[in-house]
Amino acid sequence: MTAIDLLLTDCNVATMDGPGVGEITDAAIAIAQGRIVWVGPRRDAPQVATTERLDGQWVTPGLIDCHTHLVFGGTRVGEWEARLDGESYESIAKRGGGIRSTVAATRAASDDELRSSAQTRLDALIAGGVTTVEIKSGYGLDHTTELRMLRVAGELQGARVVRSFLGLHALPPDVARETYVRDMVEIVLPAAHAEGLVDQVDAFLETIAFNTDEVTALFRKAKALGLPVKLHADQLSDGKGAALAASFGALSADHVEHTGADGVAAMARSGTVAVLLPGAFHTLRETKLPPIDEFRRAKVAMAVATDCNPGSSPMLSLPLAMNFACVRFGLTPSEALAGVTRNAAAALGMAHEIGTIAAGKRADLVAWEIDRPAELAYWLGLTRATRRWIGGTAT
Amino acid sequence: MTAIDLLLTDCNVATMDGPGVGEITDAAIAIAQGRIVWVGPRRDAPQVATTERLDGQWVTPGLIDCHTHLVFGGTRVGEWEARLDGESYESIAKRGGGIRSTVAATRAASDDELRSSAQTRLDALIAGGVTTVEIKSGYGLDHTTELRMLRVAGELQGARVVRSFLGLHALPPDVARETYVRDMVEIVLPAAHAEGLVDQVDAFLETIAFNTDEVTALFRKAKALGLPVKLHADQLSDGKGAALAASFGALSADHVEHTGADGVAAMARSGTVAVLLPGAFHTLRETKLPPIDEFRRAKVAMAVATDCNPGSSPMLSLPLAMNFACVRFGLTPSEALAGVTRNAAAALGMAHEIGTIAAGKRADLVAWEIDRPAELAYWLGLTRATRRWIGGTAT
Ligand SMILES: [Zn+2]
Ligand SMILES: [Zn+2]
Repeated sequence: MTAIDLLLTDCNVATMDGPGVGEITDAAIAIAQGRIVWVGPRRDAPQVATTERLDGQWVTPGLIDCHTHLVFGGTRVGEWEARLDGESYESIAKRGGGIRSTVAATRAASDDELRSSAQTRLDALIAGGVTTVEIKSGYGLDHTTELRMLRVAGELQGARVVRSFLGLHALPPDVARETYVRDMVEIVLPAAHAEGLVDQVDAFLETIAFNTDEVTALFRKAKALGLPVKLHADQLSDGKGAALAASFGALSADHVEHTGADGVAAMARSGTVAVLLPGAFHTLRETKLPPIDEFRRAKVAMAVATDCNPGSSPMLSLPLAMNFACVRFGLTPSEALAGVTRNAAAALGMAHEIGTIAAGKRADLVAWEIDRPAELAYWLGLTRATRRWIGGTAT
Repeated sequence: MTAIDLLLTDCNVATMDGPGVGEITDAAIAIAQGRIVWVGPRRDAPQVATTERLDGQWVTPGLIDCHTHLVFGGTRVGEWEARLDGESYESIAKRGGGIRSTVAATRAASDDELRSSAQTRLDALIAGGVTTVEIKSGYGLDHTTELRMLRVAGELQGARVVRSFLGLHALPPDVARETYVRDMVEIVLPAAHAEGLVDQVDAFLETIAFNTDEVTALFRKAKALGLPVKLHADQLSDGKGAALAASFGALSADHVEHTGADGVAAMARSGTVAVLLPGAFHTLRETKLPPIDEFRRAKVAMAVATDCNPGSSPMLSLPLAMNFACVRFGLTPSEALAGVTRNAAAALGMAHEIGTIAAGKRADLVAWEIDRPAELAYWLGLTRATRRWIGGTAT
């Protein structure tokens, strides 16, 4: 065993490694060179000089928000208010609302403005226990701004950032569809990748967005570049997105409210994670529930994320997403916790590095002032995180 | 005009006094001896020595959470988890769950324990912009503990506290029903009142709680003592609670999901406020919506509160309650803001003192880093409050 740098002790641990939450009471965690080297009952802990007593608090893996659109210009609060005041979607779209208004605001924003507003939002997620966050492009919809978004995402502080290229998010105004898709696939994605800005490739498959052929062209390019893929799938209709994603061995299919039995089976075969996004379900007042029981039966891993975005999910608390996943979708609190740790790591292709408390994993940890792990998902608006470590360093 | 102590300037104000949110852009607010003495456009502001510039932030009345059960022992997270894991209500009740477990934990807790856990929860509400909070008894259900709860509520720091006697919350075990009601009405309420612990009297009218005759006896005593009344009414069934409350000129009828046309009309006649509690609606997975349109048509004022309690609404953010009121119940963002300011003040009988920004009112104010007032209700889990004043003093 390497020399131990730090022993966290006098804590209860939800390792998320093993059945349920992998509970170890009266436990300790040994950390060396940024990684967990030992976890177990305190009485068996190695003797070390540097010890931190946690007075009976619970320690979980650092939370992972595996689906966000955290970098954007403006908000859509005006449009949100208009909708609640009774204005129709059509009328709002006609006067330039919807995703196009965010695209205009994002293009108009300076790098500093994008960074500063995204950092404020990331700080809120971090206060809720997040240590890793995925952030997508997709509000630039042109070469310059898509890359700017990804650069800004990489400059944010306080959490590990995983970046997804989402050029096929929406068709921008005044561009021919074919030209747009070809440029994103052939020019913009390769350029972003060449600059080291892309960890994974995402797209929005939907009648109002992009179709199977277009997504297929993008995913083929991603595969050629050696990049993993994922998909906004079956959110508003069963577009067979989950099956398409699975056919490319996608890390995850996200939303999946309308995914049918064929999609679930395909995901199970390919090991594709179902990413549940109850903030969007809530905000859009959806009623079609994702097929939770089918995912369980097929042993499709379920993750939970905020989907933070200005239009359909202005959500900045992962514990709140856990609560919604339990209360609205019927997950158990243990499933919700697995959904923001172990399974969220898998949705990012990082299950070998983060998401559980086990020897060899990076020491991304959060201490919580709670009586039991389910309490993370129980409160609506009370944050119980007291301490955070990323790679063994207190943050 | 009295000598002005403080001028808040360079702000936008939602006075909540007048149509919509009573918006004044580029405004100022003058404060003297703890009260607002002037509000209007900055160019017309009186000249004073002590000025605070708010750099374009919005100022609203301090938020008022007019229905909480903030003082309690323990949590009910274990029971919450068991329910989500599939255990039935009946089975949970059989092994001592439900409100009885909170009563046992509250009786067993020391004053210090009750105070410290309630203060943690109040601090969360305050971080969300609350300057006044209503807190009920009702987890003691005996003479000693009901009074202890009200004393502890009065000792909390950081917000104005309004106390409600809720002895008729549930029937405790091992007490005859008639004896219990008679003792609460004839002995415990008068004792609590004599000690100055009671601002208003509340009860829970429901098939599983207390009936019309029992509540009537309590309300008659309250009237005799000169105390205003309010009622947990029509939450799970139309028990004609709203009409009963109105017949006593109640300040508010709370929950009111099942209130019928007769109840709405009675509330309109008596000026009784409808207090909407979407946190309980969410947590209990209710489907019957309160009659929002009927309240609007009858001009029944609507308030919004967290109902913070360990069993059915572990909610500790009033902006989150506003979001739920908009998204789940269909309030407009302006109605939601009126619901936690002007109308919440009315639900506490304090409309002459707090709830709007107008000359003569107490200077309970919050500054927010937002673009427009609707943004308070828009975010799910992002708190934008930057500054708070209670009675003109920064807190
Ligand atoms: Zn998304
Ligand atoms: Zn209540």
